Amino acid sequence: MENMTLVYILSAVVIVLALGFAAYLASWVKKQKNDNKEIERIAGLIRDGANTFMRKEYTVLAVFAAVMAVFIYLFLPRPVWSAGAVPGSNLAMALCYIAGTVFSAVAGKVGIYVASLANARCAEAAQEGVKPAFLIGFRGGAVMGLIVVAACLLGVMGVMIVVGDASMLLAFSFGASSLALFAKAGGGIFTKTADVSADLAGKVELGIPEDDPRNPAVIADNVGDNVGDVAGMGADLFDSNVATMAAALVMATALGGKNPSMVFVYSALGLLSSIVGIYLGKIGPKGTPTGALNKSTYVSTVVFLALTAAATLIWGFEWRYWGAAAVGLLVGVVIGLTTNYFTDDNHAIVRKVAHASATGPAFTILSGVSYGFISALPAMVGIALSALIAHNLGGMFGISMAAVGMLSIVGTIISNDAYGPIVDNARGLAEMGSLGEETIRVTDELDSAGNTVKAVTKGFAIGAAGLTVISLLGAFMQEANHAIAEINLGLAAGEAPIAILTGFNLVDPTVFFGILVGAAIPAVFSAMLILGVDKNAQRMIAEIHRQFREIKGLAEGEPGVQPEYNKCIDIATTGALKELIPAGLMAIISTLLVGFIGGVQAVGGFLLGNIVTGLLLALFMSNAGGIWDNAKKYVEAGNEGGKGSDTHKAAVIGDTVGDPFKDTAGPSINTQITVVSLAASMLAQVFVHFHLF
Amino acid sequence: MENMTLVYILSAVVIVLALGFAAYLASWVKKQKNDNKEIERIAGLIRDGANTFMRKEYTVLAVFAAVMAVFIYLFLPRPVWSAGAVPGSNLAMALCYIAGTVFSAVAGKVGIYVASLANARCAEAAQEGVKPAFLIGFRGGAVMGLIVVAACLLGVMGVMIVVGDASMLLAFSFGASSLALFAKAGGGIFTKTADVSADLAGKVELGIPEDDPRNPAVIADNVGDNVGDVAGMGADLFDSNVATMAAALVMATALGGKNPSMVFVYSALGLLSSIVGIYLGKIGPKGTPTGALNKSTYVSTVVFLALTAAATLIWGFEWRYWGAAAVGLLVGVVIGLTTNYFTDDNHAIVRKVAHASATGPAFTILSGVSYGFISALPAMVGIALSALIAHNLGGMFGISMAAVGMLSIVGTIISNDAYGPIVDNARGLAEMGSLGEETIRVTDELDSAGNTVKAVTKGFAIGAAGLTVISLLGAFMQEANHAIAEINLGLAAGEAPIAILTGFNLVDPTVFFGILVGAAIPAVFSAMLILGVDKNAQRMIAEIHRQFREIKGLAEGEPGVQPEYNKCIDIATTGALKELIPAGLMAIISTLLVGFIGGVQAVGGFLLGNIVTGLLLALFMSNAGGIWDNAKKYVEAGNEGGKGSDTHKAAVIGDTVGDPFKDTAGPSINTQITVVSLAASMLAQVFVHFHLF
Repeated sequence: MENMTLVYILSAVVIVLALGFAAYLASWVKKQKNDNKEIERIAGLIRDGANTFMRKEYTVLAVFAAVMAVFIYLFLPRPVWSAGAVPGSNLAMALCYIAGTVFSAVAGKVGIYVASLANARCAEAAQEGVKPAFLIGFRGGAVMGLIVVAACLLGVMGVMIVVGDASMLLAFSFGASSLALFAKAGGGIFTKTADVSADLAGKVELGIPEDDPRNPAVIADNVGDNVGDVAGMGADLFDSNVATMAAALVMATALGGKNPSMVFVYSALGLLSSIVGIYLGKIGPKGTPTGALNKSTYVSTVVFLALTAAATLIWGFEWRYWGAAAVGLLVGVVIGLTTNYFTDDNHAIVRKVAHASATGPAFTILSGVSYGFISALPAMVGIALSALIAHNLGGMFGISMAAVGMLSIVGTIISNDAYGPIVDNARGLAEMGSLGEETIRVTDELDSAGNTVKAVTKGFAIGAAGLTVISLLGAFMQEANHAIAEINLGLAAGEAPIAILTGFNLVDPTVFFGILVGAAIPAVFSAMLILGVDKNAQRMIAEIHRQFREIKGLAEGEPGVQPEYNKCIDIATTGALKELIPAGLMAIISTLLVGFIGGVQAVGGFLLGNIVTGLLLALFMSNAGGIWDNAKKYVEAGNEGGKGSDTHKAAVIGDTVGDPFKDTAGPSINTQITVVSLAASMLAQVFVHFHLF
Repeated sequence: MENMTLVYILSAVVIVLALGFAAYLASWVKKQKNDNKEIERIAGLIRDGANTFMRKEYTVLAVFAAVMAVFIYLFLPRPVWSAGAVPGSNLAMALCYIAGTVFSAVAGKVGIYVASLANARCAEAAQEGVKPAFLIGFRGGAVMGLIVVAACLLGVMGVMIVVGDASMLLAFSFGASSLALFAKAGGGIFTKTADVSADLAGKVELGIPEDDPRNPAVIADNVGDNVGDVAGMGADLFDSNVATMAAALVMATALGGKNPSMVFVYSALGLLSSIVGIYLGKIGPKGTPTGALNKSTYVSTVVFLALTAAATLIWGFEWRYWGAAAVGLLVGVVIGLTTNYFTDDNHAIVRKVAHASATGPAFTILSGVSYGFISALPAMVGIALSALIAHNLGGMFGISMAAVGMLSIVGTIISNDAYGPIVDNARGLAEMGSLGEETIRVTDELDSAGNTVKAVTKGFAIGAAGLTVISLLGAFMQEANHAIAEINLGLAAGEAPIAILTGFNLVDPTVFFGILVGAAIPAVFSAMLILGVDKNAQRMIAEIHRQFREIKGLAEGEPGVQPEYNKCIDIATTGALKELIPAGLMAIISTLLVGFIGGVQAVGGFLLGNIVTGLLLALFMSNAGGIWDNAKKYVEAGNEGGKGSDTHKAAVIGDTVGDPFKDTAGPSINTQITVVSLAASMLAQVFVHFHLF
């Protein structure tokens, strides 16, 4: 393997650039005008609420991570008491795991801090017009994007330099996944609990307007946007990005040559491309917010392709891997565009669902479910084709390079995605702070751009997750073979060696057994999260009722009487973590059970089953949710009878069903699959030793 | 291979017994009291409507089948003009295909005729009490059950005797599948079109009661029960049963020995067990309808296990295959029981969904979707475990024997299932014929038993389909290898032979490509059917409006003024066939595309992807639909606020969503997978020759 020093220097330079740029953007955001007392007060409540959630989440996570770290130290890569175990190796693995959680946690914490500064300033700037407000929202999100990707690159580089073993990256990645599970699924339950309770208890039962400060759940609702959409999504993409790099580096190290360098160079250049894209993400003289967001994506894409082509030429990397990365990135863009076709109200699908709502809510649901199913097809075919082409170009490593390519511009993707909740919050603040109709119209325009772009970024995220978990399947096989080779080395004379895996044959009933069980897991996981939102919302609604009953003058809106916002935030937080843990354990325990019943063959099938139905359900739920959301907005814009009509009522029911689909279950499935894949890889050795069939 | 004469004689004796018993039951039903003029008039309208649908369906099918037969004659098993082609073989294949459609069509026709005699007589007998009415409903359904299974056995035996080539059975099976696609998916669209339109235009818009004779769609609604649930379900299980026998015989013939005999003996004894079970299906002195239906299932199960054990002993079959069949049958029973747990309102799940409806329709949907997803887990694990155990007992052939075991008592299963729509119709007739409250209560009791038992039979049907398609995957591999071996034989000196398939490796990206695309197909297929129901209902509602506008005195209910029932039946029929064909073509064309892109490897993956998500979605949709249906009934029984409450309204929305889930899309997925698997097997040779990657 060639000397990596130059590569690490390049990466370090890009990391410093990114962090410096992020610091500049953060201080720029902080300097913006922020002198409306009422808005600052409410924004302060939201910030405190987000901190409450994050503190509690991180506390529970710390306990979870500590238990896992002890477990890892004791058992992995091999039981610490067994002959031939290297305790230092176990310790390194446990520490890598902890590092994974810490890096992601810090990135999330900083990102959410800046986002919660940006929302109030964005609301105020909206009084001046679209352009200045846009810039605050976008740059606030960009801090998150830059820090997440820089932290990812730094962490991976750190593990490689300090430990020098690519398979330790799996532990680092597993740490990031553990955090993502809490942040994404926990945050998803939190945000929808608050959303649903605030709506049901406030708007429906008590008849007070949305975002009314008397409603004890209203702050929790705004907090939810930050913890679910900003922090959760950041942790999710941190996780995908680390897993992609880990899988690619495990394979690159096995191949040797210039390949490990290439993985780093491409990732570093991806971050550099995101910096350029973010820098240019401004509204031009005749531009729109949507145009500016898309510009940043397309600029990053083109810059990445050009820079990596130049690097390939100069460094002498293999062109076929460049091709694989390019295919991955382009397919990501195409998936994003088709997602946009299905979920944007300028196209036919959303309008058809809005029209079907005129016949009643059952038809809102039926048509949304149907188009949600159909929308999965182009993305599945896209992922399948990119895997096929990438493999033809460069084997299993080609597939992981396609994933690296698809995730290369993840910095820009996160920026665009985090922009959404910031301007959504700004809209709420403008309303609560009574900034006037024109300001609200401006924030509405910003918000609508956020929704449109979200579809594209979501397509990217799911597509990348698809390719990543395929690479992880390869990594799992590699780890299992590692274990098998070690066992074979230690055989006594005359004992038959275990055959090295060449794959998983799907007509082998052990593999098939794993596939069928694995296929059911994402469905059960989603169901548990959705039911969790439901249960948690019941608790919060009871608390809202209690406050209106016990706090004198609250219902009447007497001056100075405040609801206990923190109680609601506490309930949403505690409940979210409580509902999340059984779902996460179910996924991990079923992996263990399948492994102990059918060994590595069954686990290979299990991972495939997970990937296949996981992708289908993630696409279905995210897109159906997006369709319903936008169909409701389309009706509210005055179509098909407009606000207050029966069609509108039907569309609202669709939207309520779609909320936990698209913000809780759908996007958490990625994380569930990654967690399970990484757990399987780390336990590969155990499954080789012990299994029933 | 041993002489099959004795086996064929045994089978023939059982077939004659079954047909004789069916004829006796049919004449017994026909002899029952039937002298209420009004009921007979309405029953006559329903009978005519069903005939209209079946005539049109069979006409379209005849054209479709003729085109397919020509295609088969020209191309399969090899192009008729190619060197080495045996035109007689192509002709035999085309004829087997046609025979498959004809056998299934005749069985369906006779079955539906008797069912449509039974409904009126059952309604009249309900005036005497539960017991006599039950017997008419059950025996009416039993005629269908016996004839379907006897026709299946006769057809398979005929092909084996006349053509003597097990792989010709695939063509016979493909014929049965083509018919099932029309009968099940077409019938499913028909029945829900009529149901939804009658409700929306009648109950909701015009405010006239359900089953009001002024509603032009009311007869179509009753016809739907017959064509969707009786004929469609019969064709579906005919199809599964033939496919199971075909797959088992293809493998048994390859294994040789006593195995082909065993497949026939087991199937014949299964039919015999069903005869015994049906004979004993009566309500005892203290019994209930549910008890009687379950008794027939359990008696058939025990008799089958005992008879096949005796046959295995006497004939000297291998015990391990008996074990595999027993495992299949028992797992079928277990899947049925768990389905019952999820969908029966005596258990917690349905009640939870009813309770969630109190919070609004969005929660009816969310909780139903969640429990529907969870309900798939036990069945998936059950199918996976039975495949694993059966394979450990007897390899790939063991799996097909497990499927034979699970479907052995299919005669009883169909009887129980066809009982449902007959008593449902009887209930409608009792109401339209004004037979009084007590009679309606009796028919309600009968109907409720039908719904409960349906869950068990549906579990069986999906479980069996799961095992069948696994066997078909084996059959596909066998056919592909057949083609490869032939090509290798004809190689010129120096040409490299094609490797014989040993399976499909899921880390092979060609296979993986197939898996991902295949996984999306059942989702898209379901979506197209659901949207088809929606479009078709819009047409029918327009027709209902037209009739009320143009037929003078109809709305006022003037004596002698009749709506044009046939117009509605025509619309439902034409529309159902029109909406079905694109969905069917989509499934077949995507198989062709995947085959031409990635060859047999990709098709193997494609079939697996189909099976995995197909099973998941079929279980999810059927069970979620069942949960919603029963949650509505539970509320209507006076719980959670009862009829007319907001909870009831929410539950009704759930039921409307569930209807096309459980009666159109869910049960059609089985057929879609079977059609695709058989088409793939028949085209295996073509895919070996021509593919892109």
